[in-house]
Amino acid sequence: MGLFADLREAAAGDWRHYVEHPFVCGLADGTLPAPAFRHYLAQDYLFLIHFARAWALAVYKAGDLAGMRAASATLNGLLDVEMGLHLSYCASWSLDAAALVALPEATATMAYTRYVLEKGLAGDVLDLHVALAPCVVGYGEIGRRLAADPATRREGNPYASWIDMYAGPEYGAVMDGALAELDRLAARRLTPARFDELVITFSQATRLETAFWQMGLDEAR
Amino acid sequence: MGLFADLREAAAGDWRHYVEHPFVCGLADGTLPAPAFRHYLAQDYLFLIHFARAWALAVYKAGDLAGMRAASATLNGLLDVEMGLHLSYCASWSLDAAALVALPEATATMAYTRYVLEKGLAGDVLDLHVALAPCVVGYGEIGRRLAADPATRREGNPYASWIDMYAGPEYGAVMDGALAELDRLAARRLTPARFDELVITFSQATRLETAFWQMGLDEAR
Amino acid sequence: MGLFADLREAAAGDWRHYVEHPFVCGLADGTLPAPAFRHYLAQDYLFLIHFARAWALAVYKAGDLAGMRAASATLNGLLDVEMGLHLSYCASWSLDAAALVALPEATATMAYTRYVLEKGLAGDVLDLHVALAPCVVGYGEIGRRLAADPATRREGNPYASWIDMYAGPEYGAVMDGALAELDRLAARRLTPARFDELVITFSQATRLETAFWQMGLDEAR
Amino acid sequence: MGLFADLREAAAGDWRHYVEHPFVCGLADGTLPAPAFRHYLAQDYLFLIHFARAWALAVYKAGDLAGMRAASATLNGLLDVEMGLHLSYCASWSLDAAALVALPEATATMAYTRYVLEKGLAGDVLDLHVALAPCVVGYGEIGRRLAADPATRREGNPYASWIDMYAGPEYGAVMDGALAELDRLAARRLTPARFDELVITFSQATRLETAFWQMGLDEAR
Repeated sequence: MGLFADLREAAAGDWRHYVEHPFVCGLADGTLPAPAFRHYLAQDYLFLIHFARAWALAVYKAGDLAGMRAASATLNGLLDVEMGLHLSYCASWSLDAAALVALPEATATMAYTRYVLEKGLAGDVLDLHVALAPCVVGYGEIGRRLAADPATRREGNPYASWIDMYAGPEYGAVMDGALAELDRLAARRLTPARFDELVITFSQATRLETAFWQMGLDEAR
Repeated sequence: MGLFADLREAAAGDWRHYVEHPFVCGLADGTLPAPAFRHYLAQDYLFLIHFARAWALAVYKAGDLAGMRAASATLNGLLDVEMGLHLSYCASWSLDAAALVALPEATATMAYTRYVLEKGLAGDVLDLHVALAPCVVGYGEIGRRLAADPATRREGNPYASWIDMYAGPEYGAVMDGALAELDRLAARRLTPARFDELVITFSQATRLETAFWQMGLDEAR
Repeated sequence: MGLFADLREAAAGDWRHYVEHPFVCGLADGTLPAPAFRHYLAQDYLFLIHFARAWALAVYKAGDLAGMRAASATLNGLLDVEMGLHLSYCASWSLDAAALVALPEATATMAYTRYVLEKGLAGDVLDLHVALAPCVVGYGEIGRRLAADPATRREGNPYASWIDMYAGPEYGAVMDGALAELDRLAARRLTPARFDELVITFSQATRLETAFWQMGLDEAR
Repeated sequence: MGLFADLREAAAGDWRHYVEHPFVCGLADGTLPAPAFRHYLAQDYLFLIHFARAWALAVYKAGDLAGMRAASATLNGLLDVEMGLHLSYCASWSLDAAALVALPEATATMAYTRYVLEKGLAGDVLDLHVALAPCVVGYGEIGRRLAADPATRREGNPYASWIDMYAGPEYGAVMDGALAELDRLAARRLTPARFDELVITFSQATRLETAFWQMGLDEAR
């Protein structure tokens, strides 16, 4: 089924806590307090900056031109398109671009982003992509599930556009690209002993994503 | 007064939250719940492993033989002495060595350690040492202050030996070495513009240390 | 006058050996043996791949969004435009794209490229850009000087198009960007002690560029 | 037979050029010009500094405490013992310690050392150890072969002590440790596709070692 499915199964408990987190439930039924979402959104912008750095590292570590070009395309997409879209979306939630950059990074933001970067520097390109996967693939999985779930509130849900974005075909292509890259790298570099290590990486990264949702919720307490 | 004093002053609020954290107050008056301390202690062992990795990185990045030898001495001290002492101390709190290594890393442990390592890889040797400073120097400052404070409970305080360790002359030498290394590096590499960046690094690292205390407390809730 | 001019003056001897190397003289008067140029050109393609990796590293290390975007633009230019132009140019010298990728890297190619990358990883973003400068700025300086020199042979010089490329306005913009980035970084991170270290980096990188010319010449012996 | 033997067989041509280089033949029969050896020896000291940095990187990248301790022991051996022995040996060849540190690094010294470091940073701990192997294991193989070869001149050969050092039991233990570490890492991380990549790394590192011998010879031309 592919490396991602194997990792998700091996880290099923941590994965469920992440994709079924109360923050996600609050997005689905529209009950998430606005301050929680706004805090999440602002930190997600700072997250994106370090996420772009991780893709630059993926270019450096790719090992061949095809891998370099693929990672570079993602890097550009982030710097030239995603960040602009994110700022527009933030503006629709009354978050000002200048204010965003000046925000202190929350510990949960630092925690996941630096974990990914450091894993990529300490390990190889496969370690890096596995550490990125809970973010890249997880958001797509969450988006699709919520969009397909009849229990998800559509009318008057302020988070409907967020769900649509991650359920949509554009993000789906990003997600499919990440899954394919994982399998391409696994075909070259995966061994049984490494699988056990990658499960730890995947679990840790997943728990750090969960802490990122929780950071949003904690703001609204 | 030296770079460290300047950084501490510039990040005074974050620093006070760290060195006067309720966890620290609980060490001083002996009221810290044992489960909180035990959780902290176990995670601190996992912390030490990554801390040793940071000193290995400091050897790699030192730039001259004197710096390499100084960082290598610290690395050895950690791997050959400190970790053994830490395990003995853990045993006195009924924490088994084999169990420690098998523990999942808490997010707060991952957060600070990977932050330091990534800062060191992204920046230069001065960035790395500034990210390490809240830990290396902070523990010494806390130990000395508690040991000198007449309000600190001595009799029957289960944390008295912890305080003595970080107030003692051996740790004092480690702390003094770190302060001197910061000043040696600052003399070569500090500029006004970099000072502002280093304050951010110092503040962020300090907040991640605070989150490490909090992780201990949260365990005992 | 700017950091580059100061570095070039401090490393004047090494710089002159590089920009006035017999390989360069052979380009100017058209006497460079074709096999020397062809060997150089093929290795320069392998060089470009690692050069692109260095710019990916510059994105990772930039420290702010403006620096990330500038380095990312250069990275894209290399991967999406320069490499294609280089392959076309190689084809005009009967060098086949498939054959190029399969070539073993010459030691001189490995030497300069890995030096730059390792300097960037061991140091900070200023160290990285100084290590890149002899290549980025040197080629522009050589191109402009040869194009302006009445002694340069124009008629029937098989290397005239090479000279024109590096003397032209497009490459000039790349070179000016590199000079401006060096000054921007120097304003933030340069100290007298670091200048001495940067002179060593600049001299070493310059000597490795000289060895790259020499590799071409040696092929035609 | 182990990973090293497989790599050596796959890169047999490059390996033979390295271990049977005229520089090595000159050591065996004592005909190597003293200036060639002295130049080699002085550069080998600068080499050792970067070699120690590579072992610091191996500590950082080890992935477990056992690997960290093994690499750290080698790092210490280099900084605290080997460098002192090397300086004594250099003194016996009239090379002064203060003069050594002030020497400009030869391009061949930069080439191999930075290649190893950069390979370690771009790849994982197995890539790093494979890049180190031609040096660590090659010197032992050369020492043993020359010591066992009846054609090697013993009487009045100024290089006899060099041969004895690398043929001796102390260096043999270093070499055996490196071979065992390669096999331990291969058991965890080797795949058929990676083997092909590791052969390239091994060949490139071997050719850079050959260039290091050649640098010595060229000095005496």
